[in-house]
Amino acid sequence: MASGFCSLALTVTTSLFSSHAITRRVLPILRWRSSSMSLSPLRHSRALSAATTVPISSSFTWDDVIETGRAEYNSSDLTGFFEKINRCNRGSEKLGEFIPFVIEEQIVGYIHKRFTEYLREFHDIFTFSQNGSCPDRVDGYVTLNLMLQKPEDRTRAVADVIKILGDKGIIPGIRNELYPVKPSFNAPVFFSLERAAAPYFGIKGYGVHMNGYVERDGQKLLWIGKRSLSKSTYPGMLDHLVAGGLPHGISCGGNLVKECEEEAGISRAIADRAIAVGAVSYLDIDQYCFKRDVLFCYDLELPEDFVPKNQDGEVESFKLIPVAQVASVIKKTSFFKANCSLVIIDFLFRHGFIRPESSGYLDLYQRLRNRDCS
Amino acid sequence: MASGFCSLALTVTTSLFSSHAITRRVLPILRWRSSSMSLSPLRHSRALSAATTVPISSSFTWDDVIETGRAEYNSSDLTGFFEKINRCNRGSEKLGEFIPFVIEEQIVGYIHKRFTEYLREFHDIFTFSQNGSCPDRVDGYVTLNLMLQKPEDRTRAVADVIKILGDKGIIPGIRNELYPVKPSFNAPVFFSLERAAAPYFGIKGYGVHMNGYVERDGQKLLWIGKRSLSKSTYPGMLDHLVAGGLPHGISCGGNLVKECEEEAGISRAIADRAIAVGAVSYLDIDQYCFKRDVLFCYDLELPEDFVPKNQDGEVESFKLIPVAQVASVIKKTSFFKANCSLVIIDFLFRHGFIRPESSGYLDLYQRLRNRDCS
Repeated sequence: MASGFCSLALTVTTSLFSSHAITRRVLPILRWRSSSMSLSPLRHSRALSAATTVPISSSFTWDDVIETGRAEYNSSDLTGFFEKINRCNRGSEKLGEFIPFVIEEQIVGYIHKRFTEYLREFHDIFTFSQNGSCPDRVDGYVTLNLMLQKPEDRTRAVADVIKILGDKGIIPGIRNELYPVKPSFNAPVFFSLERAAAPYFGIKGYGVHMNGYVERDGQKLLWIGKRSLSKSTYPGMLDHLVAGGLPHGISCGGNLVKECEEEAGISRAIADRAIAVGAVSYLDIDQYCFKRDVLFCYDLELPEDFVPKNQDGEVESFKLIPVAQVASVIKKTSFFKANCSLVIIDFLFRHGFIRPESSGYLDLYQRLRNRDCS
Repeated sequence: MASGFCSLALTVTTSLFSSHAITRRVLPILRWRSSSMSLSPLRHSRALSAATTVPISSSFTWDDVIETGRAEYNSSDLTGFFEKINRCNRGSEKLGEFIPFVIEEQIVGYIHKRFTEYLREFHDIFTFSQNGSCPDRVDGYVTLNLMLQKPEDRTRAVADVIKILGDKGIIPGIRNELYPVKPSFNAPVFFSLERAAAPYFGIKGYGVHMNGYVERDGQKLLWIGKRSLSKSTYPGMLDHLVAGGLPHGISCGGNLVKECEEEAGISRAIADRAIAVGAVSYLDIDQYCFKRDVLFCYDLELPEDFVPKNQDGEVESFKLIPVAQVASVIKKTSFFKANCSLVIIDFLFRHGFIRPESSGYLDLYQRLRNRDCS
């Protein structure tokens, strides 16, 4: 998925979006936030105590994981799960610091107002529109120069800018991998953008995440990966058996089969048995970065004797852990890469590890997906 | 679930909700609608043709069901599924015809303005508050007389009114079964209300719906029920193996075990294996009736040799049908009781019968649950 770096300091200023016709398309998200807050019966996040969670750290070992998981799983207390969902949905109060990135009159992303300053010098590529009838709400939007009509021209022109910003360290962690830029999943692709730049332009990101599990003596166990310490993002943290961002030009199913082979040495014959089971989504603002990600979730029941073998060096090791223990680790630690927690919480819902009798059940379930899950 | 009757004719008048502090709590739903409409990438409903669907009818036979299911299941065309979701979410444009029903400063329901006329004569029970600063938007809200402080007093007083309205045929199909009245699932119960009256007061309704399935030679088959022709609601239509409204004072799991026994003769030992897998929800306005239902979904994998036996006379017969055939019946007919379609579509998502490669996947998935799923 998109890079975890967002290294630039910034000063917070609040603002509202312009009432201009195009920028109005931003408002549904703001409305959703408001709606969600008003309708939620319980605001568990308020009750969270930092003391309930082990701090984020990649220096833990499998022994720490097993030790944490050993504590009895209390399915009725959902507090730790709410905390993990909140961790993926930060900064909603900072939405006003971003302005829309518009192509062909459709919003494809959001860019932090202060980050747009880095783009202004490239006036043959980026265009800034100022509009709105109220002077105090003129926020405008960013678009591409109208001369850039073809997707390949846009891709090339924006790549030149990203190269310069990457060299300056303004966009760190360049990966030389392209993500499609489009207003929603089924919409046409307007151009392609370097993966590391995606959150700086607030474009929608898509990924495939797979829970690989085994059923043994009526008990379900999940294969969990520990990311290589040499990974540039989330080194040493826990992960699914298989997960990956969805690059330009490949289907979810096709990408999953590819990732199954690369990440866990799962043959196509077995990978083809993976079942698409839904999606989770989140909106996360961290300084200049705005992630609007949708993760397509898959389940794969594996043979009892299957042992994953990482092929691409991105996973340090794997371990097979009873689902209830994984649930305890999610609740009590930040060992998992944050967005993996969401996909595992979704698994817990679908496999009966979270029950309607728990206070906050519906609220938690709803918060696995936001209204921008498109 | 709530009664299907809503027999009174009414004249449509449009109106907006008042901006009064309490009635503001209505707005999240309006905002959600707006948000949902703006963010949805595809508006499949517009493309729907009446010709694609067999009209609603309870006079069909199992032969008709099997014949319809035989046509090859096309997993890429989701049109028929969108239509079924729309069928459960009618009348959003008529939200303005309702005013909030408020207890202890919390909205517990919505009552059609014209239906409130039937309540005005009971001024020792119902109180009408008019407020708002703009004269053309004074819609106010309905509450209970402040003298009615205890839940049991409210239950008794409102029951007296329902009895009179039932005798007059204004609220038909009285069932002598009580539903809890509360603002959301985990909130305290303010009083209890006759089930048949629930949609006239727009209170939240909860149910448990279970997909009972068998896995045979790697293929999944669903047990489908056909409702008795003597049922007062949806006679002769297709239904889940087990489903029921959630009355006052029983947990979801407890109710499911009870319904398993009554509706399908499933022993507690087997029913206890049912897995809670999430929820679906809908907002449906039909004349004076406003259903705001949340259905808790369960899956139960049954032994291959299991045969359901209805105990309470509410089911005419059962049939075991391959899931892909059930999917075709959902898409092409209105044989299923409308809200059962939602729960089966959710099953299709979770069991890989609907895939991310289908255009509209995320939109359909989102629409199984609205923002009022609380």
